[in-house]
This record gives sequence, structure tokens and C-alpha cells, in this order.
Amino acid sequence: MGRLSLYFRELYRLRDSKTTTINSKELGKLVNVSSPVVRRDLSALGTIGQRGVGYSVDALIERIGQVLGSGKQWEVVLVGVGSLGDALLRYRGFSRLGFKLTAAFDIDPSRIGSTIGGVQVLDANELERVVTAAPPSLAILAVPADNAADVATLLVSLGVSGILNFAPTTLKLPPRIAVVNVDLASELQRLAFAVQSVK
Amino acid sequence: MGRLSLYFRELYRLRDSKTTTINSKELGKLVNVSSPVVRRDLSALGTIGQRGVGYSVDALIERIGQVLGSGKQWEVVLVGVGSLGDALLRYRGFSRLGFKLTAAFDIDPSRIGSTIGGVQVLDANELERVVTAAPPSLAILAVPADNAADVATLLVSLGVSGILNFAPTTLKLPPRIAVVNVDLASELQRLAFAVQSVK
Repeated sequence: MGRLSLYFRELYRLRDSKTTTINSKELGKLVNVSSPVVRRDLSALGTIGQRGVGYSVDALIERIGQVLGSGKQWEVVLVGVGSLGDALLRYRGFSRLGFKLTAAFDIDPSRIGSTIGGVQVLDANELERVVTAAPPSLAILAVPADNAADVATLLVSLGVSGILNFAPTTLKLPPRIAVVNVDLASELQRLAFAVQSVK
Repeated sequence: MGRLSLYFRELYRLRDSKTTTINSKELGKLVNVSSPVVRRDLSALGTIGQRGVGYSVDALIERIGQVLGSGKQWEVVLVGVGSLGDALLRYRGFSRLGFKLTAAFDIDPSRIGSTIGGVQVLDANELERVVTAAPPSLAILAVPADNAADVATLLVSLGVSGILNFAPTTLKLPPRIAVVNVDLASELQRLAFAVQSVK
């Protein structure tokens, strides 16, 4: 899964720059793996390059997208429009992978009613109504740690099945709920740890 | 390393809420692991709880901090003050882990000269001079993918030994340089993949 994601984003960049085919060596270079690894990964998906030509960029994007679940459109709500939430709303990388931010929620009156990155910021009081009316598959949690548990539990009770959690706390949710945690400070700590290990 | 990081941030929250001791069962609950696992992890660091009392929160923070490299102060520069860079500058989670953002750089005149989260945004033209004068250990890269390779190479040539990369591209750097990648779209993709797998 990790490498497929890397191929995928490089393929998107290639398509943006009007490249239509790529061979395993070139693709491997872009993600720092050898061409036999690329060929093995891609043949596991049933995709085979053409000798002397390589792979069709479009065909690879379509196939890897199916495997990664980006073949479908995922509706996503964001809860918490602080500076991180704001950045997430402006982030252009989600839509190309099939994610559609449908609404954002906050409790701050100065944020409510604004439109950021094309998404309307609604009053958190409306979360239940809006999410019940059109349940999104996924939610992004960008609230302070102290509110994260309550918001996550509410989202799950309303039918959300996956949460991308930016709050620096461990969520305790039923096992059927998928959670991916992104803790910015921990990532920096992981880097510091790696720097010490390299030395 | 993963679990230590989780204990660490929960311990910080406990200290903030004036909790001075915690036992393995309570700490385990906060990070979703069993108390024997907690005891094993902590005894591997040479920390032993007192029967009936538990562990000193302060002592655990100090010990885990040493192991994770947060015992020392790490100086960090940020390159790229778009909306994500802006959020990173405002983010309060870094300083408590021993990371000090010393400067930020951008090419956008409307950003240059401003102070965000207490950090001055400087002209990217000054990067070489500033970093040479006081080399930081780590850099956070929040520039567009197309500029990431050049900026990373420049930072490394100036003595930076670790890069937290938010640009959605794979950096090719010498093996002595530590790199941690955070790709927001890939994290959401990973979540979508997990949701499909759970079903």
C-alpha cells in the first residue's frame, strides 16, 4: 500500500506534465526503488508494461486508483477550522484523489459562514443535522485534543466509518471504525530520533 | 518508538492537568494497550513503577524525552509559508517537545516580514545566509512539490541533517540525511483503503 501511494502521486504529476508513458526504471527512480521492484508491484496488480515503451500513465493511474479506493468518490467532512483546518480546506491535493470536502464545522462565530477553499464553514451545532441528511464516508478531525473524543464519538454515531485524526490524542472507537492518526509533533519527534540514529 | 511517542504525549496532557502519578493500567487505557505492555515498554527504559502508586509523570516525561531525543533543544527552520506553513507556525505542539522554530522563509512578498506564531517570515533569498550563520538541525519543508527537491538539496548543503517533508514528492538525498514524509492526501487515501478493508 505504501509504495502504491507513492507511484500514484508521481503518476499524477507525470500526467499533469503531459507524460503519457513511463518505464519501470524511470518510475522507480522517482520513488527511490529499483525497476524489478516496480515491475513486481505493478504485475501484482495485473498491469504489464510493453517492452521498449513502458506503461501507460493513464492506465496505471486508473488501476492503482481502483486498488487504493480512489476509483470512487469519497465524501468528507472536516471538523475544526483552526489554522490547520483552514490549511486542509485550502489543500488542493485531496480532490484529485477522489476526495470531496462537502462541509466544515467550527464553533468560532468568526469562522462560521465563511467559505474556505470552496467549502462552507457551518456552525458545529448543525453537524448532526447535516451529517444525518447526507452521511459522508470519512471525517477529518482537526479539533483540540480535549474535544476530539466527543466529536469522534458523535461522528461515528452518525454513520461516519473512517476518521483522519489530527488531534494529538488516541481515539477509542469501535474496531469497525478505521482511524488514521497524523500527529505533527510526533512526526517531528520521529525525525529527531532518526537524525540521532543516523549519526 | 511509536508507542513511546504516544505515552509521551498523554503524559504531557496529564502533567498539564496536574496529574503527578499514573499506573500502567491507566496509561495503557489512554493509548489502547494492556498494562503488561506498558510495564514492559517502560521497564525497557529502566523505569519501574512503585506498587500501589504507579509511575511519576515527571520522571517518565524526562526519561522518554531523553530516548526520543527531546531531552535536547532542536532548532528548526520552516521553508514555505503557504496555508500549511502558516498552520505549522501557529501549531503549539512543537515547542513542548523541545523543538524551536527559529525562522521561516517564503518567496511571497505579502508574507515576508510578517510574524506568525512568534516566528519571523524572511525572504527565501536570505535562507543561505541565515542558515549558514546558525545552522538548525532540522528543517520543515512545506513548499510546492516542484520546488521541494531544490530546496531540500540547498538545505542539506547548508548542514541541515533532517527534513520533515510535507511536499508530495519523494526526495532523493544522501543516506546520512534523515527524512520523514507527511503527505496529507496519502493519509486520507490510507484511511479510505482501511475503510474498505474493514467492511
